[in-house]
Amino acid sequence: MKISFCCTGTKAAPWVDALRAALPQASIDEWRPGAAQADYGVVWAPPQQFLDEQPGLKAIYNIGAGVDALLELKLPPQAMVVRIDDGGMAVQMAEFVCHALIRHFRELDVYEAEIAKGQWSYRKPRDRSEFPVGIMGLGVLGQRVAQAVRQFDFPVLGWSRSPKMLEGVRCFSGEAQFDEFLSATRVLVCLLPLTPDTQDIMNRRTLSLLRPGAYVINVARGGHLVEEDLIPLLDSGQLAGATLDVFRTEPLPAGHRFWQHPKITVTPHTSARTLREETVAQIAGKIRASERGEPIAGVVDRQRGY
Amino acid sequence: MKISFCCTGTKAAPWVDALRAALPQASIDEWRPGAAQADYGVVWAPPQQFLDEQPGLKAIYNIGAGVDALLELKLPPQAMVVRIDDGGMAVQMAEFVCHALIRHFRELDVYEAEIAKGQWSYRKPRDRSEFPVGIMGLGVLGQRVAQAVRQFDFPVLGWSRSPKMLEGVRCFSGEAQFDEFLSATRVLVCLLPLTPDTQDIMNRRTLSLLRPGAYVINVARGGHLVEEDLIPLLDSGQLAGATLDVFRTEPLPAGHRFWQHPKITVTPHTSARTLREETVAQIAGKIRASERGEPIAGVVDRQRGY
Repeated sequence: MKISFCCTGTKAAPWVDALRAALPQASIDEWRPGAAQADYGVVWAPPQQFLDEQPGLKAIYNIGAGVDALLELKLPPQAMVVRIDDGGMAVQMAEFVCHALIRHFRELDVYEAEIAKGQWSYRKPRDRSEFPVGIMGLGVLGQRVAQAVRQFDFPVLGWSRSPKMLEGVRCFSGEAQFDEFLSATRVLVCLLPLTPDTQDIMNRRTLSLLRPGAYVINVARGGHLVEEDLIPLLDSGQLAGATLDVFRTEPLPAGHRFWQHPKITVTPHTSARTLREETVAQIAGKIRASERGEPIAGVVDRQRGY
Repeated sequence: MKISFCCTGTKAAPWVDALRAALPQASIDEWRPGAAQADYGVVWAPPQQFLDEQPGLKAIYNIGAGVDALLELKLPPQAMVVRIDDGGMAVQMAEFVCHALIRHFRELDVYEAEIAKGQWSYRKPRDRSEFPVGIMGLGVLGQRVAQAVRQFDFPVLGWSRSPKMLEGVRCFSGEAQFDEFLSATRVLVCLLPLTPDTQDIMNRRTLSLLRPGAYVINVARGGHLVEEDLIPLLDSGQLAGATLDVFRTEPLPAGHRFWQHPKITVTPHTSARTLREETVAQIAGKIRASERGEPIAGVVDRQRGY
């Protein structure tokens, strides 16, 4: 079995070593133009040339959770596209979102700014029943985030494409229930896959439906948010704040208004990082299972886009 | 039944109104010097004069969780001292501690500082198995915090005066196991009551036992920490950071080194605020129960100090 590793922006050696240790019977190399045909690709943002030169791939393993960029390339038609499911990302998402949620709800950013000025002062405690948290996207990541948020006694709502039932979560689904979900939400968390259906889903119309003084936490993809719609809603006070980990262009371009906006917290796409050890173990397990003819989790429906 | 309300630094009217609504059969007033004898006191930091003039109090209800300051006063010997148990504080503690923990573990303060300088850069993900969280104090608050921290897959340790068993928590107890507990801890959370036994419990010796690169989160009382011992340990790198919500003197005095120390996050004693609605409901319920001769929770052992 031959595996080709082709991850742009990632140091190959430790990954190739870890894959070799996990799959000792396989021949595993970093891809070079003109390399021999491989059975499996392990990829992140591969060049089109890799895909063009590897028409015989049985499966392409993406080392991130989102496959939106990969699906924009021309892929070998028979190749299964497989995404990471969890792989240590769900707990990272849960902690990142809870940190942002608590920081907004408890106004800890305001306290820090006051302390920096030498001010010791109190803000009126807020009632958590007035801060329903609405999570868009209820896959592995969204479910884990919902579970963590429940721990802090916030009302939790969820919205997904197809109907779901989750304990302690008021679930909405489909376009028909989207506005109702938004109107009941005070803290909007985006964990959706980026597809043609979800592109630009957070825009002036939809964000205006949120409860007054709402917060937006985007940990999915920059393409979900119409960036130029956000700032007027923050400046008018309709929205109270935003934590944004992802952007239309990354790194966020110099001079972009998000960098210094007082109501926006920017992080550099770090909410859930790919962890090498967990990811290699998961990919190796899936390759072994698929070689035995067993079904594997995380296979992407190319039509649906995730 | 007469109830006297005597809470320094608290606007009395909304509390008295809420108590009257909850206990319509009682006569409830804000205490004034020379006022008539009351059966119950509802207090926060009362002057000694209040206690001297109210020798007939059956019980003194403290509207906070910590009774250390109250017990330093001369109290009517027969009066029961009752503290708030939970009253909406436990969830606040859980969220405050989780926010501080995640912020330290994920280095989100460092990211924010870099973003403020216009820098988009990554830090190496850390392994949560190397960040055991050690919680001192396993009462209502400590147990809730432990449960919330477990949610994020950190190893959780607990230390208490008397032995406890908590699911998913490696429990230590008493002085004999204290050093072992500290040596296994990377993030130390203090939720202890302040008593002569726990005064100065975080000092140069004990903090030096923590795993290298440790963090300290103090949400209990300023008297638990020897403040002048903390800074050299931070400056030498033995400790990586601290979140401090409580101080020997509050408000933190102007010019105190904690205000501007880059490795210390200061908050103004806001980790768990007394919530009027929950607190009034709890005190009213306890007064009714005790009038019926039923036992109530939260009665302080004056010898033990909590």
